[in-house]
Amino acid sequence: MDKEKLILNGQDLTIEDVTRVAKEGLKVEISPEAMVRLEETRKFVFDLADKGLPIYGFTTGVGVNKDKRVFEAYFEQYNRNLIYAHCVAVEPEATEENTRAIVLARLNTFLVGRTGIQPAVAAMYKEFLNHGIHPVIPERGSVGQADISCLSHIGLAVMGEGDVYYRGTKMPAGEAMKMAGLNPVVLGPKDGLAIVSSSAHSSGPGALVLQEIRELVETANIVYALSLEGFDGNVTPLDEKVNEIRKMPGQIHCAAQVRKYLDGSYLNKKSITKSVQDPLSFRDACAVHGAVLDSLEHVWKYLTIQLNTSDDNPCVLPEQDRIISCQNFEVANWAIGFEMMGIALSHLSKVCSHRTMRMAEPVFTKLSRFLTPSEGDILGFSTVQKTFTSLDTEIRHLSNPATADYFSVSLNMEDHANNTPYVVKKTGQIVDILRYIIGIEAMHGAQAVDLREDINLGKGTKAAYDVIREEIPYYDNDRVLTTDFKAAYELVKSGRILDAVRKVIN
Amino acid sequence: MDKEKLILNGQDLTIEDVTRVAKEGLKVEISPEAMVRLEETRKFVFDLADKGLPIYGFTTGVGVNKDKRVFEAYFEQYNRNLIYAHCVAVEPEATEENTRAIVLARLNTFLVGRTGIQPAVAAMYKEFLNHGIHPVIPERGSVGQADISCLSHIGLAVMGEGDVYYRGTKMPAGEAMKMAGLNPVVLGPKDGLAIVSSSAHSSGPGALVLQEIRELVETANIVYALSLEGFDGNVTPLDEKVNEIRKMPGQIHCAAQVRKYLDGSYLNKKSITKSVQDPLSFRDACAVHGAVLDSLEHVWKYLTIQLNTSDDNPCVLPEQDRIISCQNFEVANWAIGFEMMGIALSHLSKVCSHRTMRMAEPVFTKLSRFLTPSEGDILGFSTVQKTFTSLDTEIRHLSNPATADYFSVSLNMEDHANNTPYVVKKTGQIVDILRYIIGIEAMHGAQAVDLREDINLGKGTKAAYDVIREEIPYYDNDRVLTTDFKAAYELVKSGRILDAVRKVIN
Amino acid sequence: MDKEKLILNGQDLTIEDVTRVAKEGLKVEISPEAMVRLEETRKFVFDLADKGLPIYGFTTGVGVNKDKRVFEAYFEQYNRNLIYAHCVAVEPEATEENTRAIVLARLNTFLVGRTGIQPAVAAMYKEFLNHGIHPVIPERGSVGQADISCLSHIGLAVMGEGDVYYRGTKMPAGEAMKMAGLNPVVLGPKDGLAIVSSSAHSSGPGALVLQEIRELVETANIVYALSLEGFDGNVTPLDEKVNEIRKMPGQIHCAAQVRKYLDGSYLNKKSITKSVQDPLSFRDACAVHGAVLDSLEHVWKYLTIQLNTSDDNPCVLPEQDRIISCQNFEVANWAIGFEMMGIALSHLSKVCSHRTMRMAEPVFTKLSRFLTPSEGDILGFSTVQKTFTSLDTEIRHLSNPATADYFSVSLNMEDHANNTPYVVKKTGQIVDILRYIIGIEAMHGAQAVDLREDINLGKGTKAAYDVIREEIPYYDNDRVLTTDFKAAYELVKSGRILDAVRKVIN
Amino acid sequence: MDKEKLILNGQDLTIEDVTRVAKEGLKVEISPEAMVRLEETRKFVFDLADKGLPIYGFTTGVGVNKDKRVFEAYFEQYNRNLIYAHCVAVEPEATEENTRAIVLARLNTFLVGRTGIQPAVAAMYKEFLNHGIHPVIPERGSVGQADISCLSHIGLAVMGEGDVYYRGTKMPAGEAMKMAGLNPVVLGPKDGLAIVSSSAHSSGPGALVLQEIRELVETANIVYALSLEGFDGNVTPLDEKVNEIRKMPGQIHCAAQVRKYLDGSYLNKKSITKSVQDPLSFRDACAVHGAVLDSLEHVWKYLTIQLNTSDDNPCVLPEQDRIISCQNFEVANWAIGFEMMGIALSHLSKVCSHRTMRMAEPVFTKLSRFLTPSEGDILGFSTVQKTFTSLDTEIRHLSNPATADYFSVSLNMEDHANNTPYVVKKTGQIVDILRYIIGIEAMHGAQAVDLREDINLGKGTKAAYDVIREEIPYYDNDRVLTTDFKAAYELVKSGRILDAVRKVIN
Repeated sequence: MDKEKLILNGQDLTIEDVTRVAKEGLKVEISPEAMVRLEETRKFVFDLADKGLPIYGFTTGVGVNKDKRVFEAYFEQYNRNLIYAHCVAVEPEATEENTRAIVLARLNTFLVGRTGIQPAVAAMYKEFLNHGIHPVIPERGSVGQADISCLSHIGLAVMGEGDVYYRGTKMPAGEAMKMAGLNPVVLGPKDGLAIVSSSAHSSGPGALVLQEIRELVETANIVYALSLEGFDGNVTPLDEKVNEIRKMPGQIHCAAQVRKYLDGSYLNKKSITKSVQDPLSFRDACAVHGAVLDSLEHVWKYLTIQLNTSDDNPCVLPEQDRIISCQNFEVANWAIGFEMMGIALSHLSKVCSHRTMRMAEPVFTKLSRFLTPSEGDILGFSTVQKTFTSLDTEIRHLSNPATADYFSVSLNMEDHANNTPYVVKKTGQIVDILRYIIGIEAMHGAQAVDLREDINLGKGTKAAYDVIREEIPYYDNDRVLTTDFKAAYELVKSGRILDAVRKVIN
Repeated sequence: MDKEKLILNGQDLTIEDVTRVAKEGLKVEISPEAMVRLEETRKFVFDLADKGLPIYGFTTGVGVNKDKRVFEAYFEQYNRNLIYAHCVAVEPEATEENTRAIVLARLNTFLVGRTGIQPAVAAMYKEFLNHGIHPVIPERGSVGQADISCLSHIGLAVMGEGDVYYRGTKMPAGEAMKMAGLNPVVLGPKDGLAIVSSSAHSSGPGALVLQEIRELVETANIVYALSLEGFDGNVTPLDEKVNEIRKMPGQIHCAAQVRKYLDGSYLNKKSITKSVQDPLSFRDACAVHGAVLDSLEHVWKYLTIQLNTSDDNPCVLPEQDRIISCQNFEVANWAIGFEMMGIALSHLSKVCSHRTMRMAEPVFTKLSRFLTPSEGDILGFSTVQKTFTSLDTEIRHLSNPATADYFSVSLNMEDHANNTPYVVKKTGQIVDILRYIIGIEAMHGAQAVDLREDINLGKGTKAAYDVIREEIPYYDNDRVLTTDFKAAYELVKSGRILDAVRKVIN
Repeated sequence: MDKEKLILNGQDLTIEDVTRVAKEGLKVEISPEAMVRLEETRKFVFDLADKGLPIYGFTTGVGVNKDKRVFEAYFEQYNRNLIYAHCVAVEPEATEENTRAIVLARLNTFLVGRTGIQPAVAAMYKEFLNHGIHPVIPERGSVGQADISCLSHIGLAVMGEGDVYYRGTKMPAGEAMKMAGLNPVVLGPKDGLAIVSSSAHSSGPGALVLQEIRELVETANIVYALSLEGFDGNVTPLDEKVNEIRKMPGQIHCAAQVRKYLDGSYLNKKSITKSVQDPLSFRDACAVHGAVLDSLEHVWKYLTIQLNTSDDNPCVLPEQDRIISCQNFEVANWAIGFEMMGIALSHLSKVCSHRTMRMAEPVFTKLSRFLTPSEGDILGFSTVQKTFTSLDTEIRHLSNPATADYFSVSLNMEDHANNTPYVVKKTGQIVDILRYIIGIEAMHGAQAVDLREDINLGKGTKAAYDVIREEIPYYDNDRVLTTDFKAAYELVKSGRILDAVRKVIN
Repeated sequence: MDKEKLILNGQDLTIEDVTRVAKEGLKVEISPEAMVRLEETRKFVFDLADKGLPIYGFTTGVGVNKDKRVFEAYFEQYNRNLIYAHCVAVEPEATEENTRAIVLARLNTFLVGRTGIQPAVAAMYKEFLNHGIHPVIPERGSVGQADISCLSHIGLAVMGEGDVYYRGTKMPAGEAMKMAGLNPVVLGPKDGLAIVSSSAHSSGPGALVLQEIRELVETANIVYALSLEGFDGNVTPLDEKVNEIRKMPGQIHCAAQVRKYLDGSYLNKKSITKSVQDPLSFRDACAVHGAVLDSLEHVWKYLTIQLNTSDDNPCVLPEQDRIISCQNFEVANWAIGFEMMGIALSHLSKVCSHRTMRMAEPVFTKLSRFLTPSEGDILGFSTVQKTFTSLDTEIRHLSNPATADYFSVSLNMEDHANNTPYVVKKTGQIVDILRYIIGIEAMHGAQAVDLREDINLGKGTKAAYDVIREEIPYYDNDRVLTTDFKAAYELVKSGRILDAVRKVIN
């Protein structure tokens, strides 16, 4: 790990990179070209200021105070105060993973070179990531029109103030930096504004959520394949040709994956006498899961742009010899895209839940009611239906839109907003709840498979089945299921099901 | 017009085509190759049936009755009954424009050649379009998992039953066909299922709505440009370079359009002493309008696929010598896309409304309160704020999702749905309300321009201003505004503002 | 009818009265005491004005123009302009029934005597009602913080301007008044404000909706009772004692009604060997229907207060010798109550729909699948499930809240709103859709009853069954159901089912 | 405290009592009469079973297994298994306060005497409360149609299994009971069903939430009064007479409270020359706050019934010599009421937020922008607007309904649900967020008061001001506000503001 480092240049940070830095601790470097860009822009800004022109957030105040002049003697104090005055976010604290994603996202957009920030600030962000110094950022307080009220808390740490997490402990920033051999940065002109004026509080965690969705859909495909075996379902809807005719990319992709998982399965040998059609939650699975992927594709595209472009205001344009007011902090397109993701995921929740219910119905499966090993004595997966039903209700509720609900603030100067941090967060909550729902489907799939005898599972589903049964035993008698649900959730969340299957599928 | 005809082949129908056929009466032809395809598929299906294999919806019943056999002697009766039993939609009737779009959408997907339908049925759809015979289709009743309960009503007309609109009059289908020299088609095997098993009731009207959105955003850009002149706003956020840096395609497109509209405007000559930053509804306009376009791009792509691919079930595969159960009627990806459109449009509504409010505020405009010509005596655009506020509330309400709210029906066989017709409809309603909101913004823009003296408008905005003032006079005294609002709405809806500006902009 | 007149005094108007005047054409009188009150208040206001004190909306402008003085010479012109400037509502037009309810609601609150209005205006409202002159009121445009933008349109008519409906024809107000022998009123001071400053545009139609809900629930109880017979359901949940123990008033009321309807039914003679428990949509019916009544009770109470109290601002207080600014136009409590009604009705929709689905399931009913007369040949009530499912989706969508979504308008002077007209309207739409859903349940109930042999219906359900079968024949073969659904809807809407049952139940 | 005990009899438990037991540790007793009732019912059930009649959940299985017979020899095992099979709830754990409320609510409804439960179980619930033994109840998993999947976890503890919290530590139930000198109960027939079949998981915490709302509104009234002083607002809307005329009880109550708080305030001495009307968030405050109270009144009534009536199924009716299936677990009326509360509270959030924004606007207050002590240098309460705006967005989102979103489960036997636990929880979350919003308003009110000189505060507002200033100093320079917001939140949550004011107001 130590040798591998991610080189940041403001141009090609991927969503997968964000996950690796945030969750796996990958270290980062700033590319020399990017550092040069930072220094040149910084110099340009100072030169321009020397000409006596008012520069927003540099020689002037910000927001409605843009008509106030800031004098050189007060640069440091002004920027410190600016950071203070923007520290208005409230609990809960962002997780350390999210904080890393935030710091990374902001660092990379610094490197686009349109802020005029002091290079030492960018360097400190890099140090924070590489030393694992994670500023405490209260999570709520931004309306997503640049996350100024949250990102300010990173600024505090850069100055050696406020608290950070370091080596598992919450401590004053100054103390952690000392331990790590770092010196606080003295803020200069425009640094305050550059630190806060970005959507990194949304885009960083947003990148983590998108990556999680991609993995969730792949896991859902695996679990669906296992359920199909448990259900003794029809494989014709997975046929390559028939999906190709439909031309929908997500559907084609999912059907191809599922065919792979079912390679070798008894289902492929079934004669034509099978039930002509299965319930839609089974039959349409690839189209619905694929719709989630098609939706994801859309957001993924714009969030990737976001991570590699300037979201600063004002924008420093050395090529035009000026700094201008702009709209580059506006994130409506991907904020709205996240709303769509929530709705798409609510459909995923529906089909997973319905498959789980169908597996409990003898009329479809010819197995026992609620997949009990003994209909007379053992209740089986009966009350469980309340569990995932209530979880699906939460998802449906979370899928309601929130981006367009805002007040016009700052004396009507700020009359648009997207609530991006909240929208990203609720999408992440949906993902998390779905882990339970998919985990519970997996428990049903495995149980149904167990209740059938002499069936061959597919190459992928066999691997999935095995990893499930490592953690969750066959349901042979009524037992407290809370623990099993937690285990199933962890199997999905940790990626263990995914890893096991990927290992056997090329 | 008579000479021009659209050739349909099941492969390259565009969303613009649907508008031209549905709204402008463009006539259609079926390409010879497509006709051959229909005939071959039809023959294949009969051959297969001769082998005695059960074919869903051909020699078997449909839905949960798929286990019942249909014998040759009853093909006609069975298919007539199938049409009857699916005629369960309820009021209101689809508009004739929507009906044309529906018939066209279904006709083109027939031509993909995966249904096995009797070619005479497809030909009759063509005749309906070309003669202007429009079956009465009650609009509500489909959950969007194939619009079987609505499309059946076209089947009625094909058989010469039920009612149609013809030459402006509602009359029995048989009567209209007689007048037009057409003979009813006797349905044969699989015709009933092929007629109803499609999402054309959603995709046809959906295409019209998407086209309307494209035009609406372009109009919104024009009106925004006019408002900016009325507001005496800042043009730096429109700068080509600064938008290019941001890389978001919709934003770049909108900014380029607005720069063209403002070509020659007094705004471009303003000195640096201007207000550094405008309210976000002005400053971020291109990013927000552009977000609507970015969202539109997504849905447009998948709906175009939908119009040119088979959404039938089962799917006829002569290349594999079989007919198989599939998921090709599942439309989740673009149904969910329409939900996103509603949310995106709700943001458009917000920024238009806020710009309108800001124009009424002297603190920003240095003009009179509510743009009144005389603050003491005349109320001006004061109460108006209730009008568009209440309309925006409707849009916000309509923007709530609905796709995932369905019952599991048909004894749990149909346990997924998308409510596509309703989602398309509510999106269309949002578009319609926005016409008022944009029209009212236009009235404010023109009024603000009038209140300024000696200003030069841009090339595009001048054209827009002129067409507005043709219909709506300067507000020189308090008057009933209901009529003016209607006129403004019509200006937007008819495309007159758009046309006027396009004429002067290359 | 002609002899009976409703005496209005501003104190005891009931919700039932509003229905009778609005829908049945009942004529009205103003009580002499109320007329005296109007005259005295009017005199008081003039006296106060003579003292030279500024009186909001009388000697001053309104809204943010409250700081402008209006001089006596301009009273007429000022008030005419005020009416004009508030005529900003847009289509569609209110129905004539709703218009009558609006005029009545405003007339009665005039009589509370807190406006200072010219008595001739109140008298004209009475004439409008009694002559059937119905001002054209565009429906949309009020945010429900006094419906000033809509009620203004009545003011137009009072002055003899704008359009009205009279004897089924739309015509200029002046013309209709001439035909009816009425002379336009010349507005004096404060008349403009008094005309517009009220929530009558919401409370009048709201009263009609509440009355419709009361009747809908009663009809739902009848239809449930019939369904229970068709279902061969369990009557123990209707037991008097067991409901009494629960103490919930709505549930107790509904169970008592249903017991009456089932008086004499074969269900009461069933032995103990019956299925121990029915699905919740049957078992919990009285509790869920009763919850709608409990919710209704809440809104009914506050709307009744609304109809009989002053919602004017400012409030004229002769007893204190002053006129003061107040909050009496604020209608949050019942606006929020209407939101609850929508949610309550969405539950009613669910249980009706589920009962309808359960009746189609042989596993519960021991009858045929989809209640078909012949499982092999006839599809029966199969596709129908899409119809009511899609209608329920609309109800679910409409049940989303809208009251709190508003802009802060009028330069932030009006920073609260309730969107009452829209909320009332969407609640009315829910009621209307439910008529279809309950009508379709009734069709299922009757069909199931027909499929059983030798059963005795209850006294009430027999009457309901008969009136249903008068319009909708037994489903003996597949047929187009659109017409039957319309008939079922009309049976519910017209109150014919209700009337038939009430006749036989004391 | 030790001497005072709450006597429970199943008849008169109040919502205040629940708070005292759950939050303040009040101990409980079971009244002797209630104990006798329990014993008699128990005996009756055994007698009935001796007659060989099938009794649901006693000698039969539950749910869809109601057709299975349970034999005497297996009573213990069957009931243990029933508890196990219902333990399907998932994280997070209920708080100890909520757990106490749940146990209390279930205990009191046992005492109604309709379950046939073994008296020792009820006694153990009492012991748990009095010893502070709090079973771990995972919070999610119930759809609110009896909270069977959650309440089962109490059953575990009663048997001495599973975990509990005791003296601040999580430990095995058996261990804690041993420490407390208690012996596990051996479950007998019907005990399992009686333990789980109740809505106590919703009603207990629901009672706490309702009490919190009552206190929140009172606090909001105090803070509003302080804001009004900071705003230099108009007191005429508080006038006793003018509110009495309106007749709305909540409004009258709130206005009376606010008048008391302002007793002695400089506002009462203002001359008539004041601004005629304030923004609606100030002017309508009592009507909007009062609407919350009117809504609360509704839910309060039905939840109080809930706490004192049987919500069991089946219902034991010794007076009729039978046990019957019923609908008494259906909680639709108050579940729907909680939905209304959320919407009502979203309005409270709006008016608090708007008042806070208005206080920052010099055009209204004649004070400095954002209440800064120095417009040039200090930003003041500027960025703060993002904080409460984003919090209000969360409230708006949480206020969306969720009760009617459920699956039909258990093979369609359970086709209605209310999602009561989730609805109660989201209402509680709204309350919690509002504490921030009201706290931030309070900070603005106090700051505005400080910026005015020589003003006398009212008796109540002075007390509130003082307690605020004890924790949060005057904003004299830009500083990190996160800590102050937390302090303000705690002031509201702890009731300290309320207590301080109540002390000086009689």
